Amino acid sequence: MEGILKQPQNLAKLLQSLVDEASKLPVEGDVANYIPALAAVNPDQQGLAVATIDGQVVSAGDATVPFSIQSVSKIFGLVMAMNRVGDQLWKRVHMEPSGQPFNSIVQLEWEHGIPRNPFINAGAIVVSDILATHYSACKTALVSFVRQLAGCETIYPDHEVYLSEKLHGNRNAALAYLMKSFNNIEAEVQDVLDYYFHQCSLSMTCEQLAVSLSFLANRGVHPHSGQSICTRRDAHRINAILSTSGMYDQSGEFAFTVGLPAKSGVGGSIIAVVPNYGVIVAWSPRLNSFGNSCRAMHMITHLAERLGLSVY
Amino acid sequence: MEGILKQPQNLAKLLQSLVDEASKLPVEGDVANYIPALAAVNPDQQGLAVATIDGQVVSAGDATVPFSIQSVSKIFGLVMAMNRVGDQLWKRVHMEPSGQPFNSIVQLEWEHGIPRNPFINAGAIVVSDILATHYSACKTALVSFVRQLAGCETIYPDHEVYLSEKLHGNRNAALAYLMKSFNNIEAEVQDVLDYYFHQCSLSMTCEQLAVSLSFLANRGVHPHSGQSICTRRDAHRINAILSTSGMYDQSGEFAFTVGLPAKSGVGGSIIAVVPNYGVIVAWSPRLNSFGNSCRAMHMITHLAERLGLSVY
Amino acid sequence: MEGILKQPQNLAKLLQSLVDEASKLPVEGDVANYIPALAAVNPDQQGLAVATIDGQVVSAGDATVPFSIQSVSKIFGLVMAMNRVGDQLWKRVHMEPSGQPFNSIVQLEWEHGIPRNPFINAGAIVVSDILATHYSACKTALVSFVRQLAGCETIYPDHEVYLSEKLHGNRNAALAYLMKSFNNIEAEVQDVLDYYFHQCSLSMTCEQLAVSLSFLANRGVHPHSGQSICTRRDAHRINAILSTSGMYDQSGEFAFTVGLPAKSGVGGSIIAVVPNYGVIVAWSPRLNSFGNSCRAMHMITHLAERLGLSVY
Amino acid sequence: MEGILKQPQNLAKLLQSLVDEASKLPVEGDVANYIPALAAVNPDQQGLAVATIDGQVVSAGDATVPFSIQSVSKIFGLVMAMNRVGDQLWKRVHMEPSGQPFNSIVQLEWEHGIPRNPFINAGAIVVSDILATHYSACKTALVSFVRQLAGCETIYPDHEVYLSEKLHGNRNAALAYLMKSFNNIEAEVQDVLDYYFHQCSLSMTCEQLAVSLSFLANRGVHPHSGQSICTRRDAHRINAILSTSGMYDQSGEFAFTVGLPAKSGVGGSIIAVVPNYGVIVAWSPRLNSFGNSCRAMHMITHLAERLGLSVY
Repeated sequence: MEGILKQPQNLAKLLQSLVDEASKLPVEGDVANYIPALAAVNPDQQGLAVATIDGQVVSAGDATVPFSIQSVSKIFGLVMAMNRVGDQLWKRVHMEPSGQPFNSIVQLEWEHGIPRNPFINAGAIVVSDILATHYSACKTALVSFVRQLAGCETIYPDHEVYLSEKLHGNRNAALAYLMKSFNNIEAEVQDVLDYYFHQCSLSMTCEQLAVSLSFLANRGVHPHSGQSICTRRDAHRINAILSTSGMYDQSGEFAFTVGLPAKSGVGGSIIAVVPNYGVIVAWSPRLNSFGNSCRAMHMITHLAERLGLSVY
Repeated sequence: MEGILKQPQNLAKLLQSLVDEASKLPVEGDVANYIPALAAVNPDQQGLAVATIDGQVVSAGDATVPFSIQSVSKIFGLVMAMNRVGDQLWKRVHMEPSGQPFNSIVQLEWEHGIPRNPFINAGAIVVSDILATHYSACKTALVSFVRQLAGCETIYPDHEVYLSEKLHGNRNAALAYLMKSFNNIEAEVQDVLDYYFHQCSLSMTCEQLAVSLSFLANRGVHPHSGQSICTRRDAHRINAILSTSGMYDQSGEFAFTVGLPAKSGVGGSIIAVVPNYGVIVAWSPRLNSFGNSCRAMHMITHLAERLGLSVY
Repeated sequence: MEGILKQPQNLAKLLQSLVDEASKLPVEGDVANYIPALAAVNPDQQGLAVATIDGQVVSAGDATVPFSIQSVSKIFGLVMAMNRVGDQLWKRVHMEPSGQPFNSIVQLEWEHGIPRNPFINAGAIVVSDILATHYSACKTALVSFVRQLAGCETIYPDHEVYLSEKLHGNRNAALAYLMKSFNNIEAEVQDVLDYYFHQCSLSMTCEQLAVSLSFLANRGVHPHSGQSICTRRDAHRINAILSTSGMYDQSGEFAFTVGLPAKSGVGGSIIAVVPNYGVIVAWSPRLNSFGNSCRAMHMITHLAERLGLSVY
Repeated sequence: MEGILKQPQNLAKLLQSLVDEASKLPVEGDVANYIPALAAVNPDQQGLAVATIDGQVVSAGDATVPFSIQSVSKIFGLVMAMNRVGDQLWKRVHMEPSGQPFNSIVQLEWEHGIPRNPFINAGAIVVSDILATHYSACKTALVSFVRQLAGCETIYPDHEVYLSEKLHGNRNAALAYLMKSFNNIEAEVQDVLDYYFHQCSLSMTCEQLAVSLSFLANRGVHPHSGQSICTRRDAHRINAILSTSGMYDQSGEFAFTVGLPAKSGVGGSIIAVVPNYGVIVAWSPRLNSFGNSCRAMHMITHLAERLGLSVY
């Protein structure tokens, strides 16, 4: 790993240059528009932040603008569920890549209601079910957990996004009822989905997200607090699943070109874990056909390339 | 067609001999047990009834014992919806065989929420949606329609079956929400399913069912009342769909061995239409692996064979 | 059934009017173009012929122009195989509709190499394997059989079509090798395909085809020779499979609108069986998106409608 | 990474202890038996070898016994094809995990003949087609390449295995013909398969395999010769695809528990790349239900765990 990463000033310049570069790219892709609350975002924003395991936070562009973290929130839910039920979790959700761009419902059916991994919707709904059945107030527990990780008491779900998701959640309801028909959902479907949409609707900034996930680069220990957020083994495991399944049906290509565990959300963010160094978060709302942010992809790809970050 | 069919006494003898034969067959298959209310039926019953287009009703065995008609009720719902919305119906549900024994949800996904035909669950749920949106009181309308067809005011849904279906309806809920995500369900899913389970839970006898469906053998005209229940064309069309899709994944085999438009229900009944002659209803609760009654299949197969009823 | 069918002169007029009507339809669809030999046909032709069970042949338009019968030939192969191996055949190919417009290879895989029915390519390849293993000279046997049925010694396979099919037969080779991997092909794949493409390449006229298949409307007995071509039961069975599976993924719609057992070929022909009356053959080269001739469909639909021919 | 890895003597002891441990495990799984030549292997063997980027080779157990490397050979073919045609390769084969345990033919069909990645059979057949069309003598070229990498002139394909594979290659023929129907195979299918089976039948030892693949841990440079075998970027990329797709449908689980790029073969070997350190090869013939060696899995898992080798 290059020396530049150890020098905040040089890193700041590099991040700024990548944001500048991204802002000049031809307009490509579209903002997520399946719900009005997401479609309303200003598409011409781009932020980039790095939180290192020695506690530094360096950023550029719109890195302090809150956005809807959407599927990135699946990581928070997963950590909570792993901590709560341990390896039992893996009886109800697998850790294999899905390989089903078009259609996770087919796979659910074939595999008797056991989702392929916790980062596809079906898998995150099972995780939500675990939280809904093991916490008396799972929504509150999630928000507390995320605030603690980010070191910031002002993180909230976006209520408009939450309501919007609920209104357009028929496909997720179909997944949940199908899994319930295979006895892989314990709580009431409506309660599980209510929590799930709440989780998706969290609003955070690049900097907050980078800090809150930096324990994944640090063997489970939060660099700011020194607290163990998960075991070293579970940090490895989460990074492993992120590597094979974090970027929808572009996961293989992302491993191929970037080589880092990563997760994207349709709000336009991508988080990438650099083991033993830190976490990168890039954000820009316009998405490619896989649902990954075009410019966040650009920024992270070039950052990883210039600094030789690939774990492979 | 053999002369025997014109002579009620000879026909009665033949039906009785078929019931006797069926009752002596080795025990095979199991009563539907996905809900307790169906599992409780006495499995050692068999009834057989024929209602002819000249108004006669001939029967044998337990032909006056009420049973849960289940999927046979899809015919009643379909006729009501065809009468109400005409050919618009066929934009929302197709008329092709499904060829998917194992998994109608896969096909729904592939075909963007348009079910293959009105006799698979997904298709019947779309029909239910049409009834739920076009009738102010669709449950009442159904019961009135069926009572009028059967000429009997004492036909009711079985409340216990209805509640049981609702409790175990997660898979149907998954189908409905998936179709709603493709905008092919207009009403609230819970309302549509509520009607659908009500329809499935109707309780009727072999004789009642034969009389109530005899218009299908008579170009849409009810032989008892002379009333036109549907157009001649629609009677042909319903018989056509019954021929290709009425017997689950045994439809092709049924056409091959029996050669009559037919519909079965997991309550153990099979109805078969003999165009220009009448309707046969056989009932016995134990089902084969396709969900069709073993003994009802036996009785209808032999009746059709002995009398040369195949339409082909 | 209307009296007109009994009077050759009136029938001739009706056929002529249907051909005239078809010839004035707006141009729609395209000639099969997956092989050059088929693409070269003059698309502006239409023929219509009826062969009745009392031995008459009435026709109009280009009913004496030979065309490539393609998939209609699957009927001849099936009859030969049924006669040769009896009910053993049905262990190696089923009789259910396929319901897989896009992709019979998926179903083959799911169902362990057993094709859904003898009228999809995979099924006809199994039938071809049976003929290749049971006849020392299966190509010659087929041609003799068809000439005998048509009462015409000048029927030949079209050598150019045959060679063209072989050159473009990779998908059929994939189906055959897949079935061989499931042990459902006994002979060498190349030999089986060689016979199969030979069968597809038979060239016949509307009149010849109608006469040669008229035994299907006559309980297996050829009306001209009085010879039994297949058992009465097998005639019923073939008609049954034609009804559920003869028109590709438009089989359900054809049953719905026409109501007759039928088979189409990508050469542009459709044959329809009217039990106890005769066989209709319509031909015109341009195909709709399902691979069925637009104008042949039009002619048969209107003929069936005007004369009330639906078996349902 | 632990100091032990730098000290050959300590490493030798560790490898020996792991082999001893493996040899005492309860017998589990079965030797590959789809061809007689593979079924004949003595199942009670286990070998373990490590080749480091500083040129050392340490091993234990049956590490100098040759075995059929089978799918591990896909790496050699891939490197040759990448070197020959560059990024054009990725238009004909993707780099996404397949997620289709049961059935790669379904995915090929859905994705129009483009295989998901070069480590499933279909993908390796496309790679073979590239070699068959770009080398005048591709079999010889492969053997030379592998001998050069292993630094050993006595590596040969096992002729009996090769013939056996050819005889039982119907499923691979089906894949190849299907891809040819989508124009993704250029050469004659039989020639492509001939090369492919030749590649699979290479016979090598644990030590030879470890040495020959050590360039993957060393940014493309062979540690023994100092020669560049592939670009640094391509070494990263191959490791990335190995990480997401190298272990059949257990790839996600392997990433989760071991965290190393790896490839297995049904001959019972598993190779794992430790970037910037070296390559591990474990071998023992009995396979689990995924087709991965039970004991090789055990040895590699424990080696990686004890030494903290996970890249995540």
